[in-house]
Amino acid sequence: MIELVEVSPRDGLQNEKTVLSTEDKLALIARATAAGARRIEVASFVNPKRVPQMADAEAVVAGLPRDNGVTHIGLVLNERGAARAIASGIDELGIVCVASDRFGIANQGQSSEESLAMAMRVVAMAEEAQRPAQATIAVAFGCPITGQVDPARVEAMARALAALGVREIALADTIGVARPVEVTKLVSQVKAAVGSLPIRVHFHDTRGTGVANAVAAVAAGAVTVDAAIGGTGGCPFAPGAAGNVASEDVVYALGDQLPLDLEALVDAAYWLNGRLGRSRTSALMRASRGTE
Amino acid sequence: MIELVEVSPRDGLQNEKTVLSTEDKLALIARATAAGARRIEVASFVNPKRVPQMADAEAVVAGLPRDNGVTHIGLVLNERGAARAIASGIDELGIVCVASDRFGIANQGQSSEESLAMAMRVVAMAEEAQRPAQATIAVAFGCPITGQVDPARVEAMARALAALGVREIALADTIGVARPVEVTKLVSQVKAAVGSLPIRVHFHDTRGTGVANAVAAVAAGAVTVDAAIGGTGGCPFAPGAAGNVASEDVVYALGDQLPLDLEALVDAAYWLNGRLGRSRTSALMRASRGTE
Repeated sequence: MIELVEVSPRDGLQNEKTVLSTEDKLALIARATAAGARRIEVASFVNPKRVPQMADAEAVVAGLPRDNGVTHIGLVLNERGAARAIASGIDELGIVCVASDRFGIANQGQSSEESLAMAMRVVAMAEEAQRPAQATIAVAFGCPITGQVDPARVEAMARALAALGVREIALADTIGVARPVEVTKLVSQVKAAVGSLPIRVHFHDTRGTGVANAVAAVAAGAVTVDAAIGGTGGCPFAPGAAGNVASEDVVYALGDQLPLDLEALVDAAYWLNGRLGRSRTSALMRASRGTE
Repeated sequence: MIELVEVSPRDGLQNEKTVLSTEDKLALIARATAAGARRIEVASFVNPKRVPQMADAEAVVAGLPRDNGVTHIGLVLNERGAARAIASGIDELGIVCVASDRFGIANQGQSSEESLAMAMRVVAMAEEAQRPAQATIAVAFGCPITGQVDPARVEAMARALAALGVREIALADTIGVARPVEVTKLVSQVKAAVGSLPIRVHFHDTRGTGVANAVAAVAAGAVTVDAAIGGTGGCPFAPGAAGNVASEDVVYALGDQLPLDLEALVDAAYWLNGRLGRSRTSALMRASRGTE
């Protein structure tokens, strides 16, 4: 059985022009929960001036239901964010490291090595606070600035993160450039390197490979897939890029392996489009209502 | 190395409202050829009253370049169509059989068994005319009317068609309902049943699985993939359904395995959109030009 991490409240909303109210974010999280999501990325604890969509991170966490069987995740890019996340009472910290120096500087002001050093300090903070932490390796399949990313570098980062004691490692195709054959190779390589540590994958659907990459990753041993209701999101460094792979499309493709409520996800996607004033639709949205 | 059959001039155009001129069809075929396609489905020899988009089948074939290394395919659903196709001088006949009685009656006035009997007679006509013939099993993964289609029935049809001496068997997900895991199973099952006969696959992207299914089919041993420039097409029995999986999306996803000219395909897709007055775009069209 595969696990979904619903990332629309964070990676989805973060790249949409419309800033959703805290109330709407909580409604989105409630819809994802009702559809069967058991891990949800709810906020990013970053500089509100740089990412105004995430300015209400603490308010979102304060409004979350407790003890409903759902793990709520907050993303952090540095110690300041980690301190805020821990103080907010969030269930789990998601640390973002970068496989490319140039992207790392642009995204979070850190080289690849600096992002690993940051991860070490944040894992220590999380341990101190008795809060689980996992780590995502961003641009693991390609960088929007420098192009190719060496799989050996990604493997070395995964080994380093595993040694730090993170509970899970994610490989992220931040810009949606990966092909299934590359996904199969990198997931297999990293899985062999980190032993029993669970592997999560994160795909964007920029070039139509999101679903195929998720399927390839699962076949290669990934146990958790990030996806966003309605395929929300995008990438500020790739104009016109599609967003995250849509939760409803991944759920349809994986079938019995990922048994969430497809109809509830599609309903949530249409609702979210309404709130965001956006008309882009996922394949399942089109298939369900016959619109384009 | 995987082979592409470009189906936009037939399955793509057949389901678009705008009827393209013969001249435009020939321009589309020339663009597909220039992009590297070496097999192209150029027409369907069916009743022009039922499918006005294909009424100029003979004129299209008459206008094709000869001896340019491209195999041009004409679809036939009965002996009358086969006689027309042979008379036109087309390179290869594509016979359509159906895995579901109800769909067969609706699509071509034949039950599944009647479509096999038709295939037997058409293969004999093609042999007589020294023209190669291949066969597609339509709705092999699911029927829009009755739902499930028994894989055992598809396997039995494939065995029967192989015994008739067709040069290739295709499994078609006519309505875009298949999941990758089902594709892996059915392609493997049919491959085991038909021995060395090449297997082609045909997917529609209705539920966002087109690329993932193509990748799964290739991994399971299919050697040829149908796709349409721009993801043209649809299905008259599934309102709002997306069209064929887009050639440019399949070419991107398969990478080195399917080395066609991606830029030429995207250019052709935008050109075709202009001719059809349609704005739907494939993932690679969006990624290339930053539009939605």
